[in-house]
Amino acid sequence: MKNPFFKNYGPFKIEDILKSLDLPNIQNYRDDLINNVNDLSSAKKNEITFFNSKRYSSIASKTEATYCVTEKRLGEYLPKNCKKIYVDNVLLEMSQITSKFYPESINDNFDKSVKNISELDFENKIEYGENVLIGDNVKLGVNCSIGHNAIIEKNVVIGSNCSIGSNTIIRNTIIEDNVNILDGCVIGKKGFGFFPNNKKNLKYPHIGIVFIGKNSEIGCGSTIDRGSMSNTIIGKNTFLDNQIHVAHNNKIGDNCIIAGQVGFAGSSTLGNNVVIGGQAGISGHLKIGNNVQIGGGSGVIKDIPDNSKVMGYPSKNLRLFLKNK
Amino acid sequence: MKNPFFKNYGPFKIEDILKSLDLPNIQNYRDDLINNVNDLSSAKKNEITFFNSKRYSSIASKTEATYCVTEKRLGEYLPKNCKKIYVDNVLLEMSQITSKFYPESINDNFDKSVKNISELDFENKIEYGENVLIGDNVKLGVNCSIGHNAIIEKNVVIGSNCSIGSNTIIRNTIIEDNVNILDGCVIGKKGFGFFPNNKKNLKYPHIGIVFIGKNSEIGCGSTIDRGSMSNTIIGKNTFLDNQIHVAHNNKIGDNCIIAGQVGFAGSSTLGNNVVIGGQAGISGHLKIGNNVQIGGGSGVIKDIPDNSKVMGYPSKNLRLFLKNK
Amino acid sequence: MKNPFFKNYGPFKIEDILKSLDLPNIQNYRDDLINNVNDLSSAKKNEITFFNSKRYSSIASKTEATYCVTEKRLGEYLPKNCKKIYVDNVLLEMSQITSKFYPESINDNFDKSVKNISELDFENKIEYGENVLIGDNVKLGVNCSIGHNAIIEKNVVIGSNCSIGSNTIIRNTIIEDNVNILDGCVIGKKGFGFFPNNKKNLKYPHIGIVFIGKNSEIGCGSTIDRGSMSNTIIGKNTFLDNQIHVAHNNKIGDNCIIAGQVGFAGSSTLGNNVVIGGQAGISGHLKIGNNVQIGGGSGVIKDIPDNSKVMGYPSKNLRLFLKNK
Repeated sequence: MKNPFFKNYGPFKIEDILKSLDLPNIQNYRDDLINNVNDLSSAKKNEITFFNSKRYSSIASKTEATYCVTEKRLGEYLPKNCKKIYVDNVLLEMSQITSKFYPESINDNFDKSVKNISELDFENKIEYGENVLIGDNVKLGVNCSIGHNAIIEKNVVIGSNCSIGSNTIIRNTIIEDNVNILDGCVIGKKGFGFFPNNKKNLKYPHIGIVFIGKNSEIGCGSTIDRGSMSNTIIGKNTFLDNQIHVAHNNKIGDNCIIAGQVGFAGSSTLGNNVVIGGQAGISGHLKIGNNVQIGGGSGVIKDIPDNSKVMGYPSKNLRLFLKNK
Repeated sequence: MKNPFFKNYGPFKIEDILKSLDLPNIQNYRDDLINNVNDLSSAKKNEITFFNSKRYSSIASKTEATYCVTEKRLGEYLPKNCKKIYVDNVLLEMSQITSKFYPESINDNFDKSVKNISELDFENKIEYGENVLIGDNVKLGVNCSIGHNAIIEKNVVIGSNCSIGSNTIIRNTIIEDNVNILDGCVIGKKGFGFFPNNKKNLKYPHIGIVFIGKNSEIGCGSTIDRGSMSNTIIGKNTFLDNQIHVAHNNKIGDNCIIAGQVGFAGSSTLGNNVVIGGQAGISGHLKIGNNVQIGGGSGVIKDIPDNSKVMGYPSKNLRLFLKNK
Repeated sequence: MKNPFFKNYGPFKIEDILKSLDLPNIQNYRDDLINNVNDLSSAKKNEITFFNSKRYSSIASKTEATYCVTEKRLGEYLPKNCKKIYVDNVLLEMSQITSKFYPESINDNFDKSVKNISELDFENKIEYGENVLIGDNVKLGVNCSIGHNAIIEKNVVIGSNCSIGSNTIIRNTIIEDNVNILDGCVIGKKGFGFFPNNKKNLKYPHIGIVFIGKNSEIGCGSTIDRGSMSNTIIGKNTFLDNQIHVAHNNKIGDNCIIAGQVGFAGSSTLGNNVVIGGQAGISGHLKIGNNVQIGGGSGVIKDIPDNSKVMGYPSKNLRLFLKNK
């Protein structure tokens, strides 16, 4: 699933893309029209992708992308028919290309399209509080309840029987049926991604969305950032307590239980039936298996296999943790 | 003190209660009218209680409840005149019974009874900002100050000389005199309690309230959940810093000082004069004594006796912690 | 830089200051007019300062203040021409004196001066959402964007090209150009400072401000408290992620990157180019050097020299931490 919301300003000629980025066109690429940016596995013909770590060489070897931004040392892993664009900093250049296709994904200023819900025609289907604001291109299912001062900016889809709390802000998000988002949340904001630069950091575009599966609940004061190139996903029947932070690109499975003040650094994957105690932290780019239990306050910095119980900072097998203490 | 707010839909005949829960009525209980649900120590004649752990056998042996939901192995601890209802999952069945008496305690959708405060007759007593919303059955003392966009939903009592911050949401709460609730808090929301179920979790009703003693202060962005069967209590002259999470059923004593981002997992009791450093976490169902000092970042997973200083994860005696490091 | 915002109710005669605090005037100080309160290094002639720890004796020896509140044992470090006022509790008495000069710095009730921005004349310069409230003495640069329900209370200066998120509250703050404050923040509230007292804690006045340098970003749901006697400072091009708490008097340098849920206890100084992982905590009154890297979840309780990498609780050299685990 891709973000259906941001306007794609492409296609662009590959020659123009390289020129606008001040990249040398040593292979003399010319008129190929590029329709979209995409990750290695999702990219199709006439799309441009990127490849920046040997870790992904197996996926890279099967990419269908016509162009790939990569480093010279990685070129050999890509298929012959994939045209290489060699650069020094893959993510930086890819960020610029993404911004060219999706310029509206960088700026998260408030949505000027919102109207008071009482001026719109949702009235028969939902119950709503005072001062509720709704943007363009918002779809709401039947029997929804939307709290006071809630702001649902443009590009949001909410299923049936959902409850949105007061003072909650949602944008660039798809929510399935029977989901409760409690008070004071911010869902769908761009993630904390940028290229540090001593004068002025360069922001990474976030073209992903937040997706929340049916029957789930998000506690008060939680923040869930949308993805950069992929999506941030909360599975079905997964319950998050208050003051939780889910950074960009995390994928959380079904039937998970996550206690208060837990934080996810970004781009990690959680299996199903994972239970996490309060204030635990999950580092970035990890794979947490199914049926894993993580003790409160743990700092997880390594992958965790299925059916494990861990605790500690850094987290280790629970029995080992208790024995050491 | 019990929640004076939720409407009790009882009394119900015991026979009907069992039938509506699909429980077998093997003892052939019939026409006894049950007035209320209650915990073991508070329950009176013609009320129903529950007993699910040997830990509470001494309290159980003195309960005045007419009926008790329990497990077969625990029945022997209950008084003769207390009629037993044997079930496999005590909390699950008790949750259903509680929901029958207090159906409005499960759903925390926004309060439809609120009106803009300028339409109500508090004007002579208090100062208020823009867009302040007040629900039914709200009592406000003299000389209160209520910030912009604050939402005080139905069933709230606030004493005199209190200050409620902007963007703060309060429901099901009693606040004594001279209390400051700073900006962006959510007070009185249902706690994070439910029975995990692979298709759709079953929510636990929260019939408790939040009680905040006089002269106390709650920092910006904090969340205090109301209790499930008992109340969540903040004592007198107790100061909480910003971004603190107090889960359901915690009882915090008087004159406590709790620094930023501390989290309480639920159902723990703190004595008086307790000082807790920033980001510490207090696990559930613990007893923390009087005059205890807990270092910043600590993870407390055991009871702490009076007058102790602890630090670490898991927390230990401070001298031991410093020696080991 | 001092807080330009709070009204100074001075000058006061030194005799009257001592009388109003019930302090004995054993040196028989009389008619000297005191213009202001100030810290040891900033205080000028005809101002009053305080000195409460030997640590600051070198600064104390050069103070230009005419009066200094201090303890008897510290008097010898002060210059001859600085008149001493000996007390038992320096901070407590100084707090009372500060309150006399700046009575409006104690109370953080909502700002009654705010008006809906549509009634003011910012319209040509900025874009704004629904229900935006602006207080007296607010300056906004060109090309700013102010989100829905944002509250900019009196005494705020915002530069050009800034974006203020929806539901964000700002007071007593100066913000330079090109700064983004995301949704749901509370910036400029008084810090968590008071003198514990068993009946009713005594609040410490906060006459400092929050200062945010150009090109910086503050993530959703963050809280930044203003300083007590000095200011709370966020440097240039420094990016804070979501749910961060910066307590009073912290000074954070330029080009820092601070991940989600990090907390600063107060009065610490960070150099430039500091990177801090998620959920780390920085204790109070520390000096963190330039180019320091602090691992996620760390608890920092000691000064850190330039160019160090640390991790752990309490944090230690990263190599040592990894070796021990």
